[in-house]
Amino acid sequence: MKRISLLLCLGIFLLQTSNSPAADVSVSEATSECIDCHASVHPGIVIDWQNSRHAKIAPKDAMAVEGPARKVSSESVPYNLKGTVVGCAECHMLRPKAHADTFEHNGYEIHVVVSPRDCATCHSQEAGQYSKNLMAHAHDNLAENALYQKLQRGIIGTLARSQGRITSGPADEATKAEACYYCHGTKLKVVGKETRDTEDAGELEFPVIEGWPNQGVGRVNLDGSRGSCSACHTRHAFSIEMARKPYTCRKCHVGPDVPAFKVYAASKHGNIFSAMHKSWDFNAVPWTIGKDFTAPTCAACHVSLLVNGDEEVVSERTHQMNNRLPWRIFGLVYAHPHPRSPDTTLIRNKDGQPLPTSLDGTMAAEFLIDPKAQDIRRKSMQAACLNCHDSSWVRGHWKRFENTIQKTNGDILIATGIMGDIWQGGYADLKTSPFDEAIEKKWTDTWQFYANSIRFASAMGGGGDYGVYADGRYQLTQALQEMNDWLNLHQKLSTSSKK
Amino acid sequence: MKRISLLLCLGIFLLQTSNSPAADVSVSEATSECIDCHASVHPGIVIDWQNSRHAKIAPKDAMAVEGPARKVSSESVPYNLKGTVVGCAECHMLRPKAHADTFEHNGYEIHVVVSPRDCATCHSQEAGQYSKNLMAHAHDNLAENALYQKLQRGIIGTLARSQGRITSGPADEATKAEACYYCHGTKLKVVGKETRDTEDAGELEFPVIEGWPNQGVGRVNLDGSRGSCSACHTRHAFSIEMARKPYTCRKCHVGPDVPAFKVYAASKHGNIFSAMHKSWDFNAVPWTIGKDFTAPTCAACHVSLLVNGDEEVVSERTHQMNNRLPWRIFGLVYAHPHPRSPDTTLIRNKDGQPLPTSLDGTMAAEFLIDPKAQDIRRKSMQAACLNCHDSSWVRGHWKRFENTIQKTNGDILIATGIMGDIWQGGYADLKTSPFDEAIEKKWTDTWQFYANSIRFASAMGGGGDYGVYADGRYQLTQALQEMNDWLNLHQKLSTSSKK
Amino acid sequence: MKRISLLLCLGIFLLQTSNSPAADVSVSEATSECIDCHASVHPGIVIDWQNSRHAKIAPKDAMAVEGPARKVSSESVPYNLKGTVVGCAECHMLRPKAHADTFEHNGYEIHVVVSPRDCATCHSQEAGQYSKNLMAHAHDNLAENALYQKLQRGIIGTLARSQGRITSGPADEATKAEACYYCHGTKLKVVGKETRDTEDAGELEFPVIEGWPNQGVGRVNLDGSRGSCSACHTRHAFSIEMARKPYTCRKCHVGPDVPAFKVYAASKHGNIFSAMHKSWDFNAVPWTIGKDFTAPTCAACHVSLLVNGDEEVVSERTHQMNNRLPWRIFGLVYAHPHPRSPDTTLIRNKDGQPLPTSLDGTMAAEFLIDPKAQDIRRKSMQAACLNCHDSSWVRGHWKRFENTIQKTNGDILIATGIMGDIWQGGYADLKTSPFDEAIEKKWTDTWQFYANSIRFASAMGGGGDYGVYADGRYQLTQALQEMNDWLNLHQKLSTSSKK
Repeated sequence: MKRISLLLCLGIFLLQTSNSPAADVSVSEATSECIDCHASVHPGIVIDWQNSRHAKIAPKDAMAVEGPARKVSSESVPYNLKGTVVGCAECHMLRPKAHADTFEHNGYEIHVVVSPRDCATCHSQEAGQYSKNLMAHAHDNLAENALYQKLQRGIIGTLARSQGRITSGPADEATKAEACYYCHGTKLKVVGKETRDTEDAGELEFPVIEGWPNQGVGRVNLDGSRGSCSACHTRHAFSIEMARKPYTCRKCHVGPDVPAFKVYAASKHGNIFSAMHKSWDFNAVPWTIGKDFTAPTCAACHVSLLVNGDEEVVSERTHQMNNRLPWRIFGLVYAHPHPRSPDTTLIRNKDGQPLPTSLDGTMAAEFLIDPKAQDIRRKSMQAACLNCHDSSWVRGHWKRFENTIQKTNGDILIATGIMGDIWQGGYADLKTSPFDEAIEKKWTDTWQFYANSIRFASAMGGGGDYGVYADGRYQLTQALQEMNDWLNLHQKLSTSSKK
Repeated sequence: MKRISLLLCLGIFLLQTSNSPAADVSVSEATSECIDCHASVHPGIVIDWQNSRHAKIAPKDAMAVEGPARKVSSESVPYNLKGTVVGCAECHMLRPKAHADTFEHNGYEIHVVVSPRDCATCHSQEAGQYSKNLMAHAHDNLAENALYQKLQRGIIGTLARSQGRITSGPADEATKAEACYYCHGTKLKVVGKETRDTEDAGELEFPVIEGWPNQGVGRVNLDGSRGSCSACHTRHAFSIEMARKPYTCRKCHVGPDVPAFKVYAASKHGNIFSAMHKSWDFNAVPWTIGKDFTAPTCAACHVSLLVNGDEEVVSERTHQMNNRLPWRIFGLVYAHPHPRSPDTTLIRNKDGQPLPTSLDGTMAAEFLIDPKAQDIRRKSMQAACLNCHDSSWVRGHWKRFENTIQKTNGDILIATGIMGDIWQGGYADLKTSPFDEAIEKKWTDTWQFYANSIRFASAMGGGGDYGVYADGRYQLTQALQEMNDWLNLHQKLSTSSKK
Repeated sequence: MKRISLLLCLGIFLLQTSNSPAADVSVSEATSECIDCHASVHPGIVIDWQNSRHAKIAPKDAMAVEGPARKVSSESVPYNLKGTVVGCAECHMLRPKAHADTFEHNGYEIHVVVSPRDCATCHSQEAGQYSKNLMAHAHDNLAENALYQKLQRGIIGTLARSQGRITSGPADEATKAEACYYCHGTKLKVVGKETRDTEDAGELEFPVIEGWPNQGVGRVNLDGSRGSCSACHTRHAFSIEMARKPYTCRKCHVGPDVPAFKVYAASKHGNIFSAMHKSWDFNAVPWTIGKDFTAPTCAACHVSLLVNGDEEVVSERTHQMNNRLPWRIFGLVYAHPHPRSPDTTLIRNKDGQPLPTSLDGTMAAEFLIDPKAQDIRRKSMQAACLNCHDSSWVRGHWKRFENTIQKTNGDILIATGIMGDIWQGGYADLKTSPFDEAIEKKWTDTWQFYANSIRFASAMGGGGDYGVYADGRYQLTQALQEMNDWLNLHQKLSTSSKK
C-alpha cells in the first residue's frame, strides 16, 4: 500500500513537469514518414520539435481555447490541417505551388524555406501585424536605398588601394549574407538543382538556393513574402519562452548601433530579470504581471499580451511593435517621429535624399507620423509602465527621455555642421560617398553609435554607464572635439601649403 | 486512503516551495487600504511586495530570531510597527513630518520617497554603516567638487560651436538626472503640488518632486538623508537574493571606468557563479561557504555575513564596504589609499586641488588612510580569500595586485607628463578645464578607463582579457603613444609655422 | 500510515536531488587526515570537493563502467588508488619525486601544484590529447618567440619617456603573470622555502613557488609537464557541467582578439543556450543531442562525446581541439591552415620570421597542415553541424566562412601594404619593433582585433553585430582609412619640411 501511494505520488510529480506529448495527439502520415528518416539524419531538430507545443496539440484543440489564452489567431484553418499536430509536413508541404523551392522528395512536394505566409495559416493576425514593421522591410529598406547602399559599400565593399587612396567596390554575395543581411535578411533565389548522394536514401535531387541559410527579420522569401518568424521563434521549438526572453533580441541588438540588450542588462529591469527569472513562468498565455513575472523583458513592453491579477488586459498582444513607438530613436542621422510606412524607401527629405531627416535637422515630416499619432503610441507604451510605476514616475521618465532626443539631435547638428565645413573646404569628398573616408566615419560614429546609445540608455532606464562612459556622452563629445581638431588642422595645413 | 496521502504529499511539496505569506501574518489596516486600490492600479509592485519577506513576517517575530540569522539589526522598533508585516503604510507613512514630500492622501499622510532613515527604523546598523561609504556621498562628492564639475561639464554640458571652437555650457537638469546622477543619485526637491484626475478616485493632489524618479546610491532625500537602499535592494521585493547576485552591481559598474561586472564575469569566480549558481541558496542568513554557495559574488567579498561549515563567523556583515578596501583603485588620477572620510569634497592635494593625488603623483596623504589602517582592511578582505585559497595563493595574488597599482600609477605619471608638456606648450588650454579638449580626453582615457580596468582585472582575478586587450594594457600603451605623437606633431607644426 | 508514506515520499524526492556522497564510498586514511584540518582552514574547497564526483566514486567502480559512459580513460590505475575515492591525498601525494614542490607536511610528502601528468593517472587519453593542442604550448609559444616577445614588450613592458620618445623595457614578473601569462600559463619554479606560523598547527615549512598562483592553459609545471586541467575543470569540483558551459571558455576568450564568448552569446546557438539550458542535463555522459541539450555550447562542437537518440556516436570525445579545426582563424597576421605542430616556435615564414604567414600574405606552408588534412578536420567539425542542419545549410555556412577568411586576409594585405609604405618612408621604425608605435598599433588593431572578430563571427554564426559594427568590418575599414590618412599626412609634412 505504501509502495503504491509512493509510486503514484512520484508519478504525479513527473507528470507535472514532463515535456512529453500527450498520449492522444495524432501525427499525420506524411510527418511520420519525414520523421522515419530525419530522426536519425538530423536528430537535433526532430527532438527539438518533439518537445515543442506544435508537436503536442492539433489546431482544432488549440482553436477550441477561448479568450486571451488562445494562441491560434486565424478564425479558420484548412480542414485537412485541423486534426493532426503541426509537424514537418504541415509546414514544409503547405502551399507547394507558391514556393519557388518546392521539389519532389520521396513522393511529396516539399519546400525548404517556410515563410510567414505559411505560418499565417494558423497565426494570421501575427503575420499581418508583423508585416507592418520596419523589420519586415529590413532587406529592401537597406538594399533599395541609394544612400544606405553607399554606407554599406563603405563598410563591406571589396577594398582596393591605389595612388594613396582606398576605394570600395561592391560587396560579394557571401559577405553581404554574413554581414548586414544576416540581420536584415537575404533575398532568397532558386538558382538551380543539384543531385546529392545521400547516405540513407541514395541519389536525391534538391534545389540550390542563393542567400540560404538565413533567418533575418526582413528575408525576402521564395513565395514573395517578407520576414522570418524563426528570427525570434527559433526553429524547431518555436517556443514562446525563448521569444519572451531578451536573448532572442540580443542576436541583432547588442552592437554599438543598437545596444538594446546591453542597456537592458544594465537596467533595473534587466537586474530583476537576471536575478529572479528562474522562477518566472515564460509560457503562460496571457502573461500575468506579478504572478508570472516581476519585471519586463523586451517582449513584455513591445509585444506580449499582459493581464493584471484580475485577468484584465493591460496591454494587447501586438506583433506590430511600432504601434507602441512614438519615436524612432535610431538616428538617420537624427532621431525622428516614427515613419508612417514600414517601406522607408519611399521617404525623401527636403533635399530629395532618401532620409527621414535632412542634414540640417529638418524632419521629412510628411513621411513621419504626426504628434497626434505619436501621442497615441506614447500612451500605449506608457500603459505598460504604469503597472509598476505611478504617473509622476512615468512622466518624469518620459520627460527626460524626450529631452534626451532633443539634446542628442542638437549635438549631432553640431557634428554635422563640422562635417559640412569639411566637405565645403574640400578636405573630404561628399560626392562619391558621405560615409567612406576616415573623417566621415568619425562623424558616422557620432550619430550611429554614440547618440543612439545615449537614447537607448535613456529610453530603457539604463542611464548610468551606457549614457555616459560606454559609447555615451563622453565618447560623443570626444568625437566632436576630434572632428573639430581635424578640421582646424587641415585648414591650417591648407593655408600653410598655399603660402 | 491512497488519494488522501497523495494530496497531503503534494501539499507538503507545494508548501516547501510556495511563496505565499504564512496564514497567520497580520497586515495593518492602513496597508490594507493602500492595497485595496493599488493592487489594481499598480499590480506589479503590489504582487512583488506580496512575494517578499516584508509581507510575510512582522518585526516582533523577526526580532525574536537570535544569533547570526537575525536580519533586523535595530535593538528596538516602535511598538505600533511591531505586530504587523512591513507593508505600504509602514514605510510610506513613517516620520511624516520629516519628509518634505508628505501629502494628504485619502485621510493618510503619505510620502513618496522612502529614505535610508526610514529603513533605519528596523535596519539601523546597515543604515549607519552605509552612511560611511563614498557611495552615500556620491551626489555631493561629484556636485560639490569644482574640478569634477569641469569634468562633468565636458561630458554632459550643453554644447555650442563658434569660431572653430566647441564650448560646453552647464548641463540641463534632465540630462544630469539621466547621466552622471543616475548612479550618483539626484538631489530631490519638492517644487510644487499638482492635481491629477485619477481614473479610480477622481481628483487628487500630489507633490511635484524635482529629481524624481531616481535610485542612485547617493541620492539626497527629502528628509535630508543620503542614499537609496533600493539601489541594491530593488523595490518592492527588497530581496536579499537580488542584492547578493552580481547583476545588482552591474547597474553602475559595467562601464569602462569601473568594469567590475565584466571583470567578474570573466574571472574564475564569475565562471563558477555563472555555471553553478542555479543550485545555490541566496536567501540563507548567515551565508554558509560551500553549503550555500561555492564561489563569491560581489556581496560575498564586500558585504555579506559568511560562516564556515561549523557555523563560525568568517566575515562579519558590513554595509560599510570600504572597511575591507585598503586601496581606492579608481584613479583620480592615480590609485591611492582609501580616503579617510567618505566626504571627499574635503580633500586637497598639495597643489590645493580637490583631488586625492597631485598630477605629479604625490598622495594627499593627510586625507587618506595610513599604511596601518590599510593593513587592517587588507587582512579583513584576505579573511574572505582564505576560505578557499591557502596563504601562499593569497599572498601571491595580493603581491601582483599591489604591484599593478604601482605600475599603472607609473604609466599614468608618464601620460600626465606628456599632458603637462602639451599644456605648457600651449597646445591645449588647462585654465578653462583640463578635461574638455580632444587631447585632454585621450589623457582622461588613460587614467579613467585603461588604468582602472587593469587594476579591476588585477584585483578580482580577471586578468586575462580585461588586463590586456579589453581596455587594458594594450589600449593604455596605445593611448600613450598617440598622445606622444600628437605632442610631437604639434611641436613640429608650431616650429614650421614660426619659420 | 499516511504519515509514513508521506515521509518516505519526501525521502525519495530528496534522494533524487541530493548531492551527498553514496553511503558506501571509502575515503583514504591520508585524505581523511587532510580533511581533519583543512575542512576548517579552507572550508570552501573541501565542501566543493565533497560535492564532486571525485568524492563519490572510487576508480575501480568508475572503471567498471563500459561503453561511452566511461569517464576514466586509463586502462589501468595503480592498485593502491583503485579502492578509495579521489581525495586530497590521491592527487597531492601522487608521484612525489617528480614534483619540485614536494615537501614534508605532517608526515606526508605533498606537492602544491597538481599537473596534467598527475591527472593522466586516470585520464590518460585526455591528457595525451590535450598535450597536442596549441594551448598546451601556450607559454613557450609566446615566451620563446622573438617576434611575439616584441609584441609583448610593446604592451606590458616597463615604460619610460625621454627626448620625445616612449620606450618599453622588459616586463616585470608580477605583471607578466597577471597579463599575458594569466591565460597562456606561467612557468612555475621553486625558489626557496619558508616557515609560516599557522594558526592551527604552529610553525610549518612550505615551498615558495614563483609564478604561483596560476591556472593558465599552457602552465609549465614543476614536474616539467605543460598545461592545467583546472583551467577548464575548475578546482576542486572538476565538474563536467562547468566545462561544458560556455562560461569556462569566456575566461580567456572574451576580449577583442578572440571574442568567441561574445560572438557565441549573440548567435542563435547562444540564444537557445541562454534561454533553455536550465532544463538541460550537463552531466550526462555520453551527451545525447536533443535529449540532454538542444543547442551546442563550446564543448559540444569542440570537445564532447555526442550521441544521437539511438545512442550512436556522432562525435568522438577529443581533448585535442584542433582535430576539428581546418583553419586557425586567429590571424598572425593572416588567418592560415592550422599549424602541424602545437609547438609554433618551430615555424619560419619565407622571410625567416617565426610567423605562420609572411607580411606579403604567403603562408609558411611546410609548417601548416595541407588541404587534405584540412578536409579531414573540416568534415570532422561538419559532422557536429549536420545533427541539426541539412547539407545545403552546412555547405552554405562553410562557403561563407571560408570566403570570409579569404576576404579578411585580403583586407589585411592592404593594411600591411600601407604599413610597409610607412616603414619604407621612415615614418615608423620597423627595426626596434613592428608593434610598439601608435601607428603600428593601429595596424595591429586591424589584424588582431577586427579581422579576428569578423572571422569568429563568421565561424560561429554570430554574424550580425560582431561581423559589422562591434569590432567588425566597420572598424576594419575605418582603421584602414585612418592608416592611409596618416601616411598621406606624414608624406605631405615630410615634403613640405624639405622645401
